[in-house]
Amino acid sequence: MILGRLIRAAAFGSTAGVPPGILGTGDVLKEARRFSDADVARFAEVSGYRNPVHFDADFARSAAGFAGGRVVHGMLVASLFPSIIASHFPGAIYVSQTLQFKLPVYIGDEIVAEVQALSLREHKKRFIVRFTDEMLYKHGATCHRW
Amino acid sequence: MILGRLIRAAAFGSTAGVPPGILGTGDVLKEARRFSDADVARFAEVSGYRNPVHFDADFARSAAGFAGGRVVHGMLVASLFPSIIASHFPGAIYVSQTLQFKLPVYIGDEIVAEVQALSLREHKKRFIVRFTDEMLYKHGATCHRW
Repeated sequence: MILGRLIRAAAFGSTAGVPPGILGTGDVLKEARRFSDADVARFAEVSGYRNPVHFDADFARSAAGFAGGRVVHGMLVASLFPSIIASHFPGAIYVSQTLQFKLPVYIGDEIVAEVQALSLREHKKRFIVRFTDEMLYKHGATCHRW
Repeated sequence: MILGRLIRAAAFGSTAGVPPGILGTGDVLKEARRFSDADVARFAEVSGYRNPVHFDADFARSAAGFAGGRVVHGMLVASLFPSIIASHFPGAIYVSQTLQFKLPVYIGDEIVAEVQALSLREHKKRFIVRFTDEMLYKHGATCHRW
């Protein structure tokens, strides 16, 4: 779940054409993505977050039990949620996030991040929006839900 | 709070010299960091997470109310928590995370991420460790707590 604070759309030059009220309760925003080797390497470089489960397939399988080998950093996968919101509402401010990393996302997996507006309320010329987040992805023939 | 699953240290070649039990309840791990313009640009590139509050100081001030200008992505800042844990316990698996983004972290701010082991329990030759997370940082003369 993300609790995002969306600034009133009318206040943005960058959201011209997006009238206030475009987002309603129950609306879903989606983004598909496939993370590559290079993405994992770049994220590790910028975050300093190095763990052999992201770089060594044998280690990931034998020591951590990830049958599919190298996994994408959970925080990189999770960044799709605010990314979706910011792409629709530039200037949205991220207030809180709860994450459950239930299943690994492997390098090359097709994933679709979905956020759904759960509630909206106006507060001091801004909107406070609560979202539910979900990650749908395929690994081999199987679809998973994060 | 992070609920991290730490594989028994003895199972790792990469943690040779780190005996099981090195982490005890109450122990604190820390990492200092200062995110730069280049870090923010690289994170935006790899995550696809583009929001003018990270790139346009005037927008960040006027539309989003960030007095200090451009802010670092919250998910990039938060990645310091698993980064610290992975650097001490290679192979640690990240299970869940709750984040509260209480105050902005500006580009160039000195920050110190701290995680403290709250509880440890053994489960199927692994350790499940619950941490509390805290971000301490300076902006100008003031110290903040995330």
